[in-house]
Amino acid sequence: MDKYRVKPEEKIRLKDWDPDETDSFDGGKDEGRERLQELNRELESLQELLYAEHKHKVLIVLQGMDTSGKDGVIRHVFEGVNPQGVRVANFKVPTPEELDHDYLWRVHRQTPAKGEIVIFNRSHYEDVLVVRVHGLVAEEVWKRRFAHINDFERMLAEEGTLILKFFLHIDAEEQKKRLQARLDDPTKHWKFNVGDLKERARWADYMQAYEDVLNKTSTEFAPWYIVPSNKKWYRNLVIASVLVDALKGLKMQFPQPKEDLSQVVIE
Amino acid sequence: MDKYRVKPEEKIRLKDWDPDETDSFDGGKDEGRERLQELNRELESLQELLYAEHKHKVLIVLQGMDTSGKDGVIRHVFEGVNPQGVRVANFKVPTPEELDHDYLWRVHRQTPAKGEIVIFNRSHYEDVLVVRVHGLVAEEVWKRRFAHINDFERMLAEEGTLILKFFLHIDAEEQKKRLQARLDDPTKHWKFNVGDLKERARWADYMQAYEDVLNKTSTEFAPWYIVPSNKKWYRNLVIASVLVDALKGLKMQFPQPKEDLSQVVIE
Repeated sequence: MDKYRVKPEEKIRLKDWDPDETDSFDGGKDEGRERLQELNRELESLQELLYAEHKHKVLIVLQGMDTSGKDGVIRHVFEGVNPQGVRVANFKVPTPEELDHDYLWRVHRQTPAKGEIVIFNRSHYEDVLVVRVHGLVAEEVWKRRFAHINDFERMLAEEGTLILKFFLHIDAEEQKKRLQARLDDPTKHWKFNVGDLKERARWADYMQAYEDVLNKTSTEFAPWYIVPSNKKWYRNLVIASVLVDALKGLKMQFPQPKEDLSQVVIE
Repeated sequence: MDKYRVKPEEKIRLKDWDPDETDSFDGGKDEGRERLQELNRELESLQELLYAEHKHKVLIVLQGMDTSGKDGVIRHVFEGVNPQGVRVANFKVPTPEELDHDYLWRVHRQTPAKGEIVIFNRSHYEDVLVVRVHGLVAEEVWKRRFAHINDFERMLAEEGTLILKFFLHIDAEEQKKRLQARLDDPTKHWKFNVGDLKERARWADYMQAYEDVLNKTSTEFAPWYIVPSNKKWYRNLVIASVLVDALKGLKMQFPQPKEDLSQVVIE
């Protein structure tokens, strides 16, 4: 899955990345779903170990255009994990209190504690994406933020946080299909927001903003993965695989009991 | 008062800084106290303007050895300001929840909002001071933190925070006198902590740690001031003067009313 990781010095052009491809898996959709179930079980065990060891913090950032599948990833990849140790942080339009502070203030509060996995459903990256596309702050302001964000993530990483960032890459045609499906299905109307169409109209601007994000903020300590996401089963498989590999890489161990349990008698 | 500001490239040795001097003020203690009252009134007006303008954020960091006067500064310099716009954040021994996060987590939460002055009574600098002196984390861990702290403060500054940091400089003899005074006065026993004597015994280690702080983290965007603090009246005067000057430098203005108030009739 390393082919999807953006190397720090790489120069990304999103049109060179095919959102339809499924190259890193030999089977099709059905085999892919079976494999995902195996990964779900592995993730469940690794998350329990993470919680028990109480040493590492894990931060997962999900970014992507509307309908790219952020909610679907949370549902399908994390199926079965213990909610005690996994938390989702949603970053919506900032509140007045949040706007009165720097843009990382509300984000830092939500970062994971030891033993915890936190999933950012959108994130501080919106402050160089939507904020840029809609000109909510001056260019000199959002341009400085790439450095802030790298500094912030370096600090988190050096203080014990594993950071993985996923860009769910779909194309405009796929989004059209998915929006239409929402429109056609009354049980999905709650997910349809007329405002999303305005964002869709800015597709090219968003792709440019995402390219800058991927080129400026993929680091050794907080890499971005560009996840082909036109096919949902493959998107889930890529993310689950990266996550399982990264957690295994932490070489976690259950902590030793503080007392010699072999001497304990339960009466 | 600029002579007390640590320039970014300066190399500080604390023994070259006299904690007894009162050179930047022509009068003595009585005149100093009168001048402080004038500064108090100015500060009161400036703080009201800051609150009304709702644009800048102000962060004041107070650091110093026990008895150096952090509480005294808060009481005397901020006398008369409106508590609505001024908040003190005390950083004591971290709680278990705080320890489960990075060391800036609890600090970032407490940073000022627009229009607000926040006074840090101790701060994130303890994570390169007490933590270093007592070896609470490995050397490679605390050494990395100077860069984190500069990065963090740069981000705050670039996002609209005025940062002023004051090191209240006393010498070991002065501390001895002040601790003895606390011991001799039953109404001050609540401020006496036998543990403080252990810290006192590490005086030289603390001075070395403070020198590193002053040499590595005094920046254009978040300068340190070394405040001669053996004389309390002078300490207060220096801090009040720096603060008033810095607030004046923001060139604040009362916001224009949104409606034309000249047409408003109150019946």
